[in-house]
Amino acid sequence: MTRAIVLGGSRGIGKAISDSLKLIEIDVFAASKKDIDTSNLESVNKFLEEHNETDILILNTGGPEPKLFSTITKEDWEKYHNQLFLGFCTILQKISINENGYIFLISSNVIKEPNVKLIISSAYRAAFAEVFKVLSKEYAQNNISCISIAPGPINTDRTQELIENVKEYEKTLPMKRLGEPEEIGNFVKGIIENKVKYLSGVTINFDGANSNYIF
Amino acid sequence: MTRAIVLGGSRGIGKAISDSLKLIEIDVFAASKKDIDTSNLESVNKFLEEHNETDILILNTGGPEPKLFSTITKEDWEKYHNQLFLGFCTILQKISINENGYIFLISSNVIKEPNVKLIISSAYRAAFAEVFKVLSKEYAQNNISCISIAPGPINTDRTQELIENVKEYEKTLPMKRLGEPEEIGNFVKGIIENKVKYLSGVTINFDGANSNYIF
Amino acid sequence: MTRAIVLGGSRGIGKAISDSLKLIEIDVFAASKKDIDTSNLESVNKFLEEHNETDILILNTGGPEPKLFSTITKEDWEKYHNQLFLGFCTILQKISINENGYIFLISSNVIKEPNVKLIISSAYRAAFAEVFKVLSKEYAQNNISCISIAPGPINTDRTQELIENVKEYEKTLPMKRLGEPEEIGNFVKGIIENKVKYLSGVTINFDGANSNYIF
Amino acid sequence: MTRAIVLGGSRGIGKAISDSLKLIEIDVFAASKKDIDTSNLESVNKFLEEHNETDILILNTGGPEPKLFSTITKEDWEKYHNQLFLGFCTILQKISINENGYIFLISSNVIKEPNVKLIISSAYRAAFAEVFKVLSKEYAQNNISCISIAPGPINTDRTQELIENVKEYEKTLPMKRLGEPEEIGNFVKGIIENKVKYLSGVTINFDGANSNYIF
Repeated sequence: MTRAIVLGGSRGIGKAISDSLKLIEIDVFAASKKDIDTSNLESVNKFLEEHNETDILILNTGGPEPKLFSTITKEDWEKYHNQLFLGFCTILQKISINENGYIFLISSNVIKEPNVKLIISSAYRAAFAEVFKVLSKEYAQNNISCISIAPGPINTDRTQELIENVKEYEKTLPMKRLGEPEEIGNFVKGIIENKVKYLSGVTINFDGANSNYIF
Repeated sequence: MTRAIVLGGSRGIGKAISDSLKLIEIDVFAASKKDIDTSNLESVNKFLEEHNETDILILNTGGPEPKLFSTITKEDWEKYHNQLFLGFCTILQKISINENGYIFLISSNVIKEPNVKLIISSAYRAAFAEVFKVLSKEYAQNNISCISIAPGPINTDRTQELIENVKEYEKTLPMKRLGEPEEIGNFVKGIIENKVKYLSGVTINFDGANSNYIF
Repeated sequence: MTRAIVLGGSRGIGKAISDSLKLIEIDVFAASKKDIDTSNLESVNKFLEEHNETDILILNTGGPEPKLFSTITKEDWEKYHNQLFLGFCTILQKISINENGYIFLISSNVIKEPNVKLIISSAYRAAFAEVFKVLSKEYAQNNISCISIAPGPINTDRTQELIENVKEYEKTLPMKRLGEPEEIGNFVKGIIENKVKYLSGVTINFDGANSNYIF
Repeated sequence: MTRAIVLGGSRGIGKAISDSLKLIEIDVFAASKKDIDTSNLESVNKFLEEHNETDILILNTGGPEPKLFSTITKEDWEKYHNQLFLGFCTILQKISINENGYIFLISSNVIKEPNVKLIISSAYRAAFAEVFKVLSKEYAQNNISCISIAPGPINTDRTQELIENVKEYEKTLPMKRLGEPEEIGNFVKGIIENKVKYLSGVTINFDGANSNYIF
């Protein structure tokens, strides 16, 4: 039976992906923050002792609180360096992905259009996008597809917290609504159940036509 | 019943998309070059007289023969200006896409990494990418998703003609093989059957990790 | 003596570049629309009969009036296809650039972040950017540098016409002002007078930190 | 008198920029690794005690040795996280740039087209590019221009070490040669001496037409 590990799998986008994959008879381990805290490399290494192999891996983690550049401390940088970058690198250095597998990275569209309040997220997620791009060429040799999804405004608890008046904000969006986590879950499911493999090394905005950059 | 029009639907990637959509009970009109020749605006307008409304539209057409810049004639430019750009603009000006519909553009990854031999294709496909991006924001108001797929080396008759020694070429690719048209067909099917709508205004490389640009 | 041809050299950015180059003892031919109208291929060909060789070439032309997609006619597309794309291609097919020369393209930042009102400009300027990128590799063999400048809001007559309340608009810009044409002129001059040659094949936004895309 | 601080100013590109700026009567402090070691935050903070204000700042530092992903240690990541990212962030949090000033970032074109051997450099330089882009909009309010230069193959000691057979490598480049550090120095000088201010928030490839991505 195909197995999947979904990081941050107990809520938001991670939970939606877990739920979608369960519909197609995949044996999903939806890891919560208790199972693995990517901001803590000890926690990451301990997790890897028990989970060192999978068919499908979903790299997914929450982002930092909004913070202006001038107020970011060394501790902030180091925590999120671990959470958004070094934890994922450590996982990919140690975990074995089975042939014909998939790695999905849930990133953010702030890597293409960086955001003053989410500057930490823009920085470290962009750093990991570089690593993931390079590695996609190596994983390709085992027919493993590396797909990065860069969501825009999605209807999660976090978005509800970040944005003051969601109803007003939605009116400014091209689709007049936030995206639903289930849409990302179903997108991932659609790729896997249809055995789409040649989609790899790509960053896919998932933002309801909200971004402005041409590509 | 949901209806789809697939341009260039009788061969290659277009045929694969037609075949995939038929599997999910979509009423597909797979238009061949006899039905509509996008290099000929009269043919385009005649086609639109009979086909002025659909749920799903697949904008797809072959590219020009390889030609070096210095040898391209005014006639070449004008023919492919119609085929790769103006024909599609004319269609979008006149056809009505039903609410909750989809428009897929089958483009090429030479719009991101232009190719000396495919310079005509790089130029006019990039031009249309700009139009499609702008329009994605308008279509979003009716919950219509605009998705551009930019294939790399796919196993079609055309690729077999363009590349001298396909077997040798495949060894240079990250996945050691061309992509199959069916993978694109199944990718499109996966999006539609899973009702993924928030994916819009995006250009998705489909090239087996072959491109080098970060995004 | 080094010679330069500046298209659209009688006003706006073109005039500013002409004026700057004259300061460093370059023999500048500032071509006006009377000398060459790039929307008219006959005019282009006639110009090339007399001007078939130069050290420095500045490809520069005005853009179209703002127009929504649904209202653009076949005649509009064809006129600006000539003006923004095919005229420049014709020039580069026929003109000889001397070794160690320069070609500057004055484009627009709407090729990276397309604009609903300037959709024609976004499309055809992007198309030419593809051609210019490909050719930069060929020109490199003769140590000719190809530099594309993509201006944002610059203080020209055209901007004054396009924007209703310029004073209010300026307050929304990061630098709280439009750019001055002289800044572009001086930038071009700085590259040439300092013999910077390894800058080539690049598109440089010139927009006072106004764009949002990371690169 | 205008003052400049050039990090990594004792060799390579940094030295070339220092030398160029001295030609236009700028009071240059060419900081060597003895003055400030950006991989060591204590060294950075100590430097900032004495140098907390300038007109022109050149953020420049060497990159890591080539290393494959699987062999990179936690210590490597942390060292270069400091050297290529956190050191620069610390500087920008504490140093005061005078009105009408300039900040140049000397980055690398591996942030756009990441390199398997230079994966650390691709990652952390991309991270800092995000920070620099966001800050460019804030600095703009004081008419301070933020310009990122992304060099390709430049004729420095480091390139001579990295590349086995430089003569053979040069034949593969569009200009058939490496770029000279002086060209970057002169480019920077040309911008400053010509008071070009509206160029800001931009990443400029400096690679002799070697990159393949359209922008």
